[in-house]
Amino acid sequence: MGEHDPFARLRAAAGERAAAGLTRRLRPRGPRSAPQAVDLAGNDYLGFAGHPAVAEAAAAAARRWGAGATGSRLVTGDTLLHRELEEELADFCGTESALVFSSGYTANLGVVAALADGSAALVCDRRNHASLIDAARLAKASGAQVLLFDHADTAMAGAALSGAAREHRILLSDTVFSVDGDLADTAALARVCAEHGAALLVDDAHGLGVVGEGGTGALTAAGLGGAPGTAATVTLSKALGAQGGAVLGPQPLIRHLVETARTFIFDTGLAPPAAGAALEALRLLRAEPDRPRRLRALARRISAELSGAGLAATAPDAAVVSVLADSRRQAVAWAEACRAAGVAVGCFRPPSVPDGRSRLRLTVRADLTDAQVDRALQTVVDSRPRGPGGPDLPRADRSG
Amino acid sequence: MGEHDPFARLRAAAGERAAAGLTRRLRPRGPRSAPQAVDLAGNDYLGFAGHPAVAEAAAAAARRWGAGATGSRLVTGDTLLHRELEEELADFCGTESALVFSSGYTANLGVVAALADGSAALVCDRRNHASLIDAARLAKASGAQVLLFDHADTAMAGAALSGAAREHRILLSDTVFSVDGDLADTAALARVCAEHGAALLVDDAHGLGVVGEGGTGALTAAGLGGAPGTAATVTLSKALGAQGGAVLGPQPLIRHLVETARTFIFDTGLAPPAAGAALEALRLLRAEPDRPRRLRALARRISAELSGAGLAATAPDAAVVSVLADSRRQAVAWAEACRAAGVAVGCFRPPSVPDGRSRLRLTVRADLTDAQVDRALQTVVDSRPRGPGGPDLPRADRSG
Repeated sequence: MGEHDPFARLRAAAGERAAAGLTRRLRPRGPRSAPQAVDLAGNDYLGFAGHPAVAEAAAAAARRWGAGATGSRLVTGDTLLHRELEEELADFCGTESALVFSSGYTANLGVVAALADGSAALVCDRRNHASLIDAARLAKASGAQVLLFDHADTAMAGAALSGAAREHRILLSDTVFSVDGDLADTAALARVCAEHGAALLVDDAHGLGVVGEGGTGALTAAGLGGAPGTAATVTLSKALGAQGGAVLGPQPLIRHLVETARTFIFDTGLAPPAAGAALEALRLLRAEPDRPRRLRALARRISAELSGAGLAATAPDAAVVSVLADSRRQAVAWAEACRAAGVAVGCFRPPSVPDGRSRLRLTVRADLTDAQVDRALQTVVDSRPRGPGGPDLPRADRSG
Repeated sequence: MGEHDPFARLRAAAGERAAAGLTRRLRPRGPRSAPQAVDLAGNDYLGFAGHPAVAEAAAAAARRWGAGATGSRLVTGDTLLHRELEEELADFCGTESALVFSSGYTANLGVVAALADGSAALVCDRRNHASLIDAARLAKASGAQVLLFDHADTAMAGAALSGAAREHRILLSDTVFSVDGDLADTAALARVCAEHGAALLVDDAHGLGVVGEGGTGALTAAGLGGAPGTAATVTLSKALGAQGGAVLGPQPLIRHLVETARTFIFDTGLAPPAAGAALEALRLLRAEPDRPRRLRALARRISAELSGAGLAATAPDAAVVSVLADSRRQAVAWAEACRAAGVAVGCFRPPSVPDGRSRLRLTVRADLTDAQVDRALQTVVDSRPRGPGGPDLPRADRSG
């Protein structure tokens, strides 16, 4: 017994992170009615999280269907609202079926674990989202083979599929990589999968509502809507402004998930307010199919102006622009200076970056006004750290 | 290329499940205003999911804070509403701090993975919830040692802690085991942890709002509210009627999660309507602290009456009563007969049961009327399958 505290070690670990400049802090914001920073940090690409019609749809769903689902979808948590959302999502994205999960994270964990037992090999882009990485780790624990290919290296992906020592092969890739916003060549990935009889599962979290005709996502943009052997996960919490995730694909896959996906079976169903909000946002998107095109044009303009000012900005395929910093220390100071000037930007540092390079991450929103865009651009440029960065902080171990 | 369909195998797997009586189907329900079955299947123990004040809190939060959080809590997804909910949750459960996740599933994955690297050993009850099992699998993939002990066998847990070949040891257990509703001896688990310098993490998903004085949960019931080295996960989607999960524990643990838990960092924050609904439900619970006691008394009455009618019903410690069936086939037929008579009961079969024995699972709700209870009891008893069950369906492989 005695006074031993098994969590005492966590204080030491926090101290080490602080010394390495890796402290992360929560900074709660006030209500939407309070003055807000110009938001170039969130994933509310189309401005639907604060759209009055979306809020009213959430409110109506709470009253009509309840504040929560009350149980697993397979027990008491399934409603006609969930079904309506799933049918409209599948229709919009051109797939046969859809299944909604409580988050994109659990959707990825669920579909990968349900497909990948000991008879399966997973072939994964090294820069996939954390949820796909965790999903592959879980699958490996169940006996699946996991092979990584270098980011966006389709030839290496094909070689991995070819060399996989399992009967069933599944290629996993983000469509829009979340840190830099670069787009996978989904059509090329689908070809290499077809050549090897492999299934293709893409995470279109940052693609739905952003890429493809009318925002229908990366599968339709690649001509793969409804293609056999092809599936996508999407999120309801980014362009659709709500919460939750979904798997889109052929009906036998969806049935397989209903019956076997652990994060579907053993999790409470998505709360009706989130389902109602996502459904309303989807309808708004369908009614204004030009929003995603304007969003992408705005992202290109922001990137071009930052590059023109001498910053190392990526050329966006979707609605994410990242701007490299010289060091973690500089990235943190830069983001803080932007925030102090009323512009919220993301600051990505190890272990959240794939290459160990710290950067600002700007996410573009379709509802930014010209004045907000001008102010944001000016702020990012003016806040740029001056002079040589000096020695960086020690490099932390990479996780993820 | 050619016509090979990599998902074709899923049709065959579905056929095998159907032949084994393991088909699962979604059955969406209508809105709350439509006639509903008497619900003895969901986890809305206190009736808050459909409570008008809870629905209004969800609606108000959607308008005031947005339908979605717009990003990770660490980027733009954190609001003063989340903080208020976390402070009230921690205060209610007597812990120093709390951190809200988008689901109980992701809370368990996040806290376990953040604590359990290669220097840690996890000592786990064999019947833990799927999310804790997946969490242990993930930790094992990161090099942690995972040791299982037989259900509720504290001595075996102590032996495992004693023999663990890692510097840090963490015991993981549900408090209320979800299938049969039996209660872990949390105080005894805490003693064995203290003896071995181990941390204790309990999943109180079915305990919050149900067990302990005023529904404050299993930690306070065991005199462990705020105890060092002790933490709990809870869910906002059961007794609190909303969606989401939380980790409750000492401040250094919560800080550690903010900075390192992957399912916190890389997931969109809980949607404000769910946070607002859970907060309102928590306040209703505090204002009516007798609800949980009445709920438990009702569960004991239901169990006693079913046992009195000759059924194999468990004696409930919380608000779950399970009733053994002779076979999977009988369990399915029994649950279907209840449903046809307007009473929804859970039907748990492999792989969702720990011992391979199929059963009905009745969850009790504080807001059931006497007439509903009488009708439910009569229905369960009258629907009991008659005569010998005959040969059962082939036993499927256990997963989970």
